[in-house]
Amino acid sequence: MHSILELRQLYLSFLKENEYQQSPQGLYEPVNYIMQLGGKRMRPVLLLMAMNLFEEEVKKGLPGAHAIEVFHNFSLVHDDIMDAADLRRGKPTVHKKYDENTGILSGDAMLVLAYSAIAKLPIAIVPQALNIFNDTALGVCEGQQYDMEFETRSEVALEEYIKMITLKTAVLLEGAMKIGALAAGGTESDQFHIGSFARKLGIAFQIQDDILDTFGDPEKFGKRIGGDIVNNKKTLLVIKAQELATEPDQKLLGELMSTTEGDEELKIETVRSIFERSGSLAFAQKLKAEYQAEAMDHLTKVEVAEDRKGIIRQFSADLFEREV
Amino acid sequence: MHSILELRQLYLSFLKENEYQQSPQGLYEPVNYIMQLGGKRMRPVLLLMAMNLFEEEVKKGLPGAHAIEVFHNFSLVHDDIMDAADLRRGKPTVHKKYDENTGILSGDAMLVLAYSAIAKLPIAIVPQALNIFNDTALGVCEGQQYDMEFETRSEVALEEYIKMITLKTAVLLEGAMKIGALAAGGTESDQFHIGSFARKLGIAFQIQDDILDTFGDPEKFGKRIGGDIVNNKKTLLVIKAQELATEPDQKLLGELMSTTEGDEELKIETVRSIFERSGSLAFAQKLKAEYQAEAMDHLTKVEVAEDRKGIIRQFSADLFEREV
Repeated sequence: MHSILELRQLYLSFLKENEYQQSPQGLYEPVNYIMQLGGKRMRPVLLLMAMNLFEEEVKKGLPGAHAIEVFHNFSLVHDDIMDAADLRRGKPTVHKKYDENTGILSGDAMLVLAYSAIAKLPIAIVPQALNIFNDTALGVCEGQQYDMEFETRSEVALEEYIKMITLKTAVLLEGAMKIGALAAGGTESDQFHIGSFARKLGIAFQIQDDILDTFGDPEKFGKRIGGDIVNNKKTLLVIKAQELATEPDQKLLGELMSTTEGDEELKIETVRSIFERSGSLAFAQKLKAEYQAEAMDHLTKVEVAEDRKGIIRQFSADLFEREV
Repeated sequence: MHSILELRQLYLSFLKENEYQQSPQGLYEPVNYIMQLGGKRMRPVLLLMAMNLFEEEVKKGLPGAHAIEVFHNFSLVHDDIMDAADLRRGKPTVHKKYDENTGILSGDAMLVLAYSAIAKLPIAIVPQALNIFNDTALGVCEGQQYDMEFETRSEVALEEYIKMITLKTAVLLEGAMKIGALAAGGTESDQFHIGSFARKLGIAFQIQDDILDTFGDPEKFGKRIGGDIVNNKKTLLVIKAQELATEPDQKLLGELMSTTEGDEELKIETVRSIFERSGSLAFAQKLKAEYQAEAMDHLTKVEVAEDRKGIIRQFSADLFEREV
C-alpha cells in the first residue's frame, strides 16, 4: 500500500514529466501555468487511492489521474472567467495573467488534453473510462450552470442546492475513484460503491465548507470568516434558515442577504445568530454527518480486505478534522 | 451507394432524434439553438461518404458524424466569443442571444457532448476513434491560436499561413473522413489516404475562399467581395504579394493594409491590382490546383473499386465549381 504522500509524489513526478512543450506556446504556456499553481492534488490522489485498494502497482492509472486533474484545472480556468475572479491560489487567474480569449482557448485545449490522457489508459478500459469521464464532465458543466442560475434566483430549494453541489464538485471525485477502481480491475459493484463513497464524501465536505465559512476558526480556516454572508451567497445555511426561522427572522435574513450595504461585521453576527437559533446550523451539521455515514457505508461494501481500506478511512477522517 | 443528399438526410434525421432534452435547460437550449442554425452539414456528410466507400450501410457511423458536427459547432460558439462576432448564419451568435458566460459554458458542454457521441461508436473502434478525435480537436485549438496571433503580427510566412488554415479547418475534415473509414473497417493505409485527401482538399478550399473573397462573382459569392481587404486580413494573397510585388507596390500594400481609413472601394481596387500584377493571384491559383491534385492522388490510393469513388469525385468537383 502507498501512503497519501507517496501517491501525491507519484502524481507530481508524472505531472513534471508531462509538461506541455508543444507549439504554439501561446496556447500551452497558460496550461502549464495553471497546472503548476499547486493545490493538494486531491483528485488524482483519490483516483490512485481507489486503484491501490485493489492493486499494489498504480502506475498504469497515472494518465487517468492526470485526466482528472487537467479537467479540474480546465474548469477552474473557465469558471474564473465566468465569475470574473482575479486570483486563484493567490496568483493571477489565467484570463488576468494573459487575456480572456487565451483563457477560453487554453481552457478548451485543456479539456481536449484531459481526454488525450484518458486515451492513454490501458486500451481495454478506454471505452469504459471514456463513458465515466463523459458523465463526470457533463455533470460538472451542469453544476456550474445551476450555480450561476441560483445566483439570480430568490429561492432555491434544499434538494436543488444539494444537486448543484453534487454536480459541481462531488461527481468529479466520484469519477476519479470510479476510474481508479476500473483501472485496477475492480468489479462494477466495486466501481459503484467506491464512486458513491467519493460522491457522498464530497457532498459532506461541501456542507462542512459552508459551515466553516461562517462558523470556522479564523486561524484554521484559510479564508475570511463570513465571506459567504457578505457576498449574499445562498448556502445550505441560508436556504434552511429561510425555512426554519421565525417570521421576523426570515424577514430580517431576507433583507440582510439582499444588500451589500451596511456594517459587514454586524451583518455577519446577526446572520450567524439566525443560523443558530433557527436550527439551520444544527440541521447542516446533521446532514453532513448523514452524508459522511452514507459514504463510509459504501466504502464498507467495496469487496476488498478491510485492512486495505485503512488509508482511505484515515483520509476521510482528516478531511473533517477542521471542526467548528 | 448513397447520394450526398441521402447522406445529409440521414444525418439530419439523426440530429432531430438526438436533440438535447436534459436539464438544466439554460445549458442545453443554446446547444440545440446553434445545432439547428443549419449549414450544409458538410463534415458529417464527409464522414458518411468515407464510410460509404467501404460499406453500403453507414448507420453505425452516425454517432461519429454527430461528434464531428457538434465539435464544429462548439468551435463556432467559442470562436464567435473570441472574435466578438454578433451574427452566425444570419442569426444572433450564442453569446449575443444569451450571454457570454452561457456561450462559454454551453460550448464546454458541447465539447463533452462531442466526446459522448464518440463513445457511442461500436466499442471495438472507440479507442482508435478517440485518438483521431483528440488529435483533430487539439489541432483545431492550435489553429485558432495561430489565427489570433497572426492578427497582431506584422509578418506571417507562407508556410505559417498554410499551417494555420490546415489546423483551423482542414484537420477537422481529415478527422471526419478518417473516423468514417475506421468505422467501415478500412485499413490504416485507407484511413491515412482518405484523411489526407480530405485535409488537402480542405486546404485547397480555403485558398479558393481567399481568392473568391477578393475576386469572386458578387452574385455567386455569398459575402461582400473585398471583405478581407477592408478588414486588413493577412490572407495568402497578401502574404505572397508582400514577397513578389515591386518595392513601391509593397510599400503601398503595407500602408493600405494597416489602416481602416480612406475610401473602401478605392482600397479594394488598388489592392486587387497589386495581387494581379505581382503574380500573387496566379500563385494562389496554382497552389490551390496543386493541393487539389494531391488530394485526388490520395483518393486514388484508397484501396476500393474506382466506381465507389464517383460520389466523392463529384463532391470535390462541386466544391470548386464556384470559379473566379
